[in-house]
Order: sequence, then structure tokens, then C-alpha cells
Amino acid sequence: MAISEFQVGRLVKAIRAHKLDALLVAPSEDLVCLLGFSPMLCERFQGLFVTAEGSSFYICNLLYVDELAEHLERKDIYSWFDGDGFVSTVQKAFMEKGLLGGRIGVSQSVRAFNALAIAAAMDVTFVDAMTVIHEARMLKTEEELGGLRKAAAIADAAFGRTVAQMKAGMTEQQVKDILFGHMSALGGVNPEGIIASGPNGALPHYMGGGRALQKGDAVVMDFGCTVDNMQSDITRTVFMGPPPQKQQDIYALVLESNLKGEAAVAEGAWIPDVDKAARDVIEQAGYGPYFTARLGHGIGFLIHEAPDIKRTNERALEKGMAFSIEPGIYLAGEFGVRIEDIVCVNHRGDAEILNKAAKEWIVIDN
Amino acid sequence: MAISEFQVGRLVKAIRAHKLDALLVAPSEDLVCLLGFSPMLCERFQGLFVTAEGSSFYICNLLYVDELAEHLERKDIYSWFDGDGFVSTVQKAFMEKGLLGGRIGVSQSVRAFNALAIAAAMDVTFVDAMTVIHEARMLKTEEELGGLRKAAAIADAAFGRTVAQMKAGMTEQQVKDILFGHMSALGGVNPEGIIASGPNGALPHYMGGGRALQKGDAVVMDFGCTVDNMQSDITRTVFMGPPPQKQQDIYALVLESNLKGEAAVAEGAWIPDVDKAARDVIEQAGYGPYFTARLGHGIGFLIHEAPDIKRTNERALEKGMAFSIEPGIYLAGEFGVRIEDIVCVNHRGDAEILNKAAKEWIVIDN
Repeated sequence: MAISEFQVGRLVKAIRAHKLDALLVAPSEDLVCLLGFSPMLCERFQGLFVTAEGSSFYICNLLYVDELAEHLERKDIYSWFDGDGFVSTVQKAFMEKGLLGGRIGVSQSVRAFNALAIAAAMDVTFVDAMTVIHEARMLKTEEELGGLRKAAAIADAAFGRTVAQMKAGMTEQQVKDILFGHMSALGGVNPEGIIASGPNGALPHYMGGGRALQKGDAVVMDFGCTVDNMQSDITRTVFMGPPPQKQQDIYALVLESNLKGEAAVAEGAWIPDVDKAARDVIEQAGYGPYFTARLGHGIGFLIHEAPDIKRTNERALEKGMAFSIEPGIYLAGEFGVRIEDIVCVNHRGDAEILNKAAKEWIVIDN
Repeated sequence: MAISEFQVGRLVKAIRAHKLDALLVAPSEDLVCLLGFSPMLCERFQGLFVTAEGSSFYICNLLYVDELAEHLERKDIYSWFDGDGFVSTVQKAFMEKGLLGGRIGVSQSVRAFNALAIAAAMDVTFVDAMTVIHEARMLKTEEELGGLRKAAAIADAAFGRTVAQMKAGMTEQQVKDILFGHMSALGGVNPEGIIASGPNGALPHYMGGGRALQKGDAVVMDFGCTVDNMQSDITRTVFMGPPPQKQQDIYALVLESNLKGEAAVAEGAWIPDVDKAARDVIEQAGYGPYFTARLGHGIGFLIHEAPDIKRTNERALEKGMAFSIEPGIYLAGEFGVRIEDIVCVNHRGDAEILNKAAKEWIVIDN
């Protein structure tokens, strides 16, 4: 693997459009996009700098040099030893590359304490550039869409296999272990997800796992994995035993919202209208205050990237955009329901729903 | 769970000593230390602010409010909706809390793009305060040392069980799956680690997993988990079949370095001397340039926290400090050997080695 000229080219255009002298990309999927690889990010400063001229260099601790040298020329790697600080190495690199006095954008995973230490020691201005790198790659290539399709298919298949094994009495963590095992076995890398049962389902980003599934629970299962550097992200809500009427009603509402949102996706559709198509269903039923999030987020190298599907993102959908549609209703102390698919506008200009897992009720009666 | 008065008290002293008006702690183990809990960190800004007066408040997206309200008073949570930005909410909070014009330290996981967006919109100065929070809790309580002991014991036991199952032909990822499974089964949360075979062992922070173990490999196994919010971190290097002479020699050298380093640990010992005791063994044998890292790092709520064990950390060891001793020799393209234990100076003032897993050669002949 080596630096991707295609991805750097996309990025350089965005760097220039934002009048930056360089962009700093710290370890993360953002770096995978450019380098095909990302080292472990510990507390030691490191990252790839891409300049407005299209050149690039890397700064890291000595510990990482051999690993980086498999992806970059050694001459483009500046390093320092643990015993010394990193700031003088940054200063040397900036001097050689003509970046002193410059404006440097930072990607999402750059940590504030590193940027503050650098800015305190030399004449350089850091600016928030999270969206620069996201927008640079917002229009996916056919190959990238192919990766998203594969990642979605693995998540779908793992869901089916996991549901067949779920039983009342299992903990959320046990369900996660089964689910992640299936994604790995199917070729999905870095399986991640949320299993939130009963009242925990009302917490959209619940991270626990200790509760045991009980009869009468709605269980929110939100998960995904990486394939060919592209992410998947799907949510289904299943029931432990026949659901009470209120769960049925809420589920029907969220499903209708999901379907209306997906039906509104089309090349040229105005993003706020897509949000509205889904949100209206829930608001008109009086549950607006319990749908506390945007309708969706872009997806690709990162699980969350551009474009956000929300009322304030005033732009039209274009070929190559891929994003989630994930309405939810979260009733604190009771339960939550969320139904999420990844959808794209493909290169033929068609809306394409990448997740195929069933959205009818699934009742687990074990 | 609720905010820990003991941990906040420790931190407030450090905040005042560093002349900060407040410290911002983003989701991470740093937050677990204060709140007993840390939400998922997505791209949306969030974090706990602890002021020099000892009060605290949280800023987050609406999505997280119900989850946070289980740990904090609702009146201390400022939130905003996805459709709006977060900056105006931060401004409102700072105005109410008297932090405009103030100096705010940032913990390790605060992202630069968030801090830059805030600093661009209002009169506030962010400063690097990674070490403030680390130093506040550098001297572990007896209860915290207890957690470190338990976490170490689980890592030790998982190592023994995993070695019994390892075979040539397994991929590094398969070994990881087995190892993580044992840590989970033994009660370890968030199992993490590196399995680096053959030439991959020369990369100290190797993150891959695709290579199959082969006869003749040295395999670096560096892993740990969390118990009672305390981390473990152990490294052993095992051999697939009887090791060639060079691997034997390097192993003997690293083991001697590890033992000398650990023998130098004592209440009142000068940290640079501990580093030197271990490093001299490797340097005198001519392998100094291949021992590219500090000797060790503190451990507790984070895998890496204070105190670093390196020549430039000029201070003495005190009761309650806990840290790794992990010499290694990394021969690019060939193999690596690292042997790591967690050691503490306990409250009786004795050096105590928390990891008990065997350090003699282990030869796997399956």
C-alpha cells in the first residue's frame, strides 16, 4: 500500500477551496482513506500533512517509523524519540516545508492538546477542517459504493444469524459477542455496535451490555463493520416475545417514517425535504419530541461523514452520496425503536437501499 | 453512579495549581474516572467541565441527555439539537458559569476541531492540560491498586489459556479472538491487544491480524482489559517451535533488561535510574538503537498515563504509582521481542509486580 494519488488529488482541491496551506490528518479512517492504513493512535502526536501543493509528509514517534515506512518514503517521515519532545521535530518539518506562518486545517481525530502545544511554540494557525476531508470524498466512486454494498450485505447476514441464536436471559454483551463473531466470520473487519434492551433502547448511543434480555423487551440492535475500508451501519429493533400494543404502535410509526424517508431519496432531492418526509410521520403522530436526532449521516471511510441528512443541510442529493436513514423514537425509562438502512444515489442516478434485512416485526420467542 | 467527589477533589487541586479556570474532559477513561461512565464519542461535541471552584457541568447533544441524566443533575446538562450548531450552547453555558475570558485546559481526548470552533466564536483560551488530569490521579488509592491487581490477574490467566490453544497456521486475528474471549469470560471488559508474529513483531504498535503463525516465529502478544475501571497491560513473546539461536539471545537480553528494570523499582527510586537500569543491559549488548521507546508508562484509568518511565521524567517513585516496565528489541524485517509487566509501589512502600505470568521461554510446538 502507498499513498493514494486519487484520494490526495480529491483532497488537494478541497484544501485549496478552503484556502488552507495544509491539512493535518491524524490516525483514523480518514488516514486509511489516504494511506490505505492507519497506525494505533496513542498519546504521542502523529499525523500526515497534505499541502496545498499536493505534497505530503508524516510526523511520528520513532516507535512508528518502520511501520510507516511500508507506506511512505522514509525521507517523508519526521520522527523523534520518547525521551525528547515532539514539538521541535514539528518545527523543523514546518520550516523545511514552508508552513511556518501558515493556516493548517485539522481533521476530526486530531487532538486539541497536540494542536495547542504546537501552536504555543511556533507561528502557525490551526483551523477546524473536519468537513474539508469529508466533503472531498462525499461523492463515492463506483468502487467505494461496491465496498459499502459488501459491508451492508455482511451486516444483513450477521443480523439474520444472530437473531436465530438470541434468547431471553442472554445479556446484551453476549448478543454483541455473537453478532460480532458472525460479522468477523463473514469477512467484516472491526465489528462494532450497540445492543440496547428494554429501557436501554431509549438511549440512542447506549454503550453498556450488562442487562439480560427479558420477555416483553424491544431490543435495539445497531451495528456494522468495515469491508474494503468502507463501513456498514444498520439498525433493527426486535421483540422478545409478542410486543405489547404500545411497542407495536411505535414500531409501525418508525417503520413508516423510515419508508417515507427512503422513498424521498432521489438524485436532485433537497436534503431538508428528505428529513421532513420522515420526520413529518413522527411529528404528526405527536412523537416529534422523542425523535431527538438528525434523520441520517453520510457514510464511507467513517461511519459518520458527509452529508448529514438534516433540515439545515441545504443542498441536493448527488450521484455517489451514501448515507443512513434512521428515524427513531426514544421513550425514556420505557423503550426505544430505531430502524436504519444505508441508502445511496448510485451512478445511474437511482436511489438504492443497501440493507436488505427484513423490516417486518421480528418476534423472538425463545 | 454519580460524579465522584474524591476524584473531582483531586482534580480541582491540580486545576488550581495550573492556574486554569476550568478543565474540559471529553468522553474517555478520563471521564470514567470522574463520572463512573463515558458515553460514545461521535463527531458531536461533548464533555464535562470542572471549574477551579469545584463545580461541574456537561455540554452535549440532545441525543445524549437522557443517558447523562443518570449520572448528573439535569440542571447541569446543557444540550442542543442536531439541526442547530453546538457553539451557541457552549457560549450560553460559559456566560452563565463565568468562564468567558477564561483559561480552559483540555484533556487528552478533546478534539482539536471542536476546541477551534469554540475559540473562534468566543473569548476563551484553551491550553494543553493532558498531564493535569493524569497527575491528579497518579498516586493510586488502595482500591485503585486493587483494580489493577485484578485486571493483571485476568490478563495473566487469559494468556495461559490462550497459549494452550495456539497452533501454527492460525492467523494473528484468530489468536486475538481467542485471547479476547478468555479475557471477557474471566470478567475483563474492553479486551484489547496486539498479536504480532514474525517480522510484524518488529513493529511495536502493529495493528494487523492477517498473517498466519509459522514455525520459527517469535510472536509478540501485548494485551489487556479493564476491571473496576482499571487497566491491565502485559506483553509476552512466545516461540512457534524451538527458537533459533538469535531469537534465544535477544530474548535473554530483553528478559534480563526487564528483570533489572523491575529490580530498580522502589519507593524513592529516581525514575531516570529505573530507565537506565533496564536500558544499559540492551545498550551494552549493542542493541540500543533497536530499543526505540521509553521503558514504561503509568497505568490506571488509561492504559497510558503518568508517570512515564523515561530518562527525562526527573522525579522519584512514590507510594501509589503504577506503571509498566517493557523493554523491547525490534529488528525490522526479522522479529521483535518485548516483555512487559505492570509494577507498582504499593502503600507499604514495596515494589510489587502485578503480572505473574511466566517469563521463561514458551515454545509452542503444535
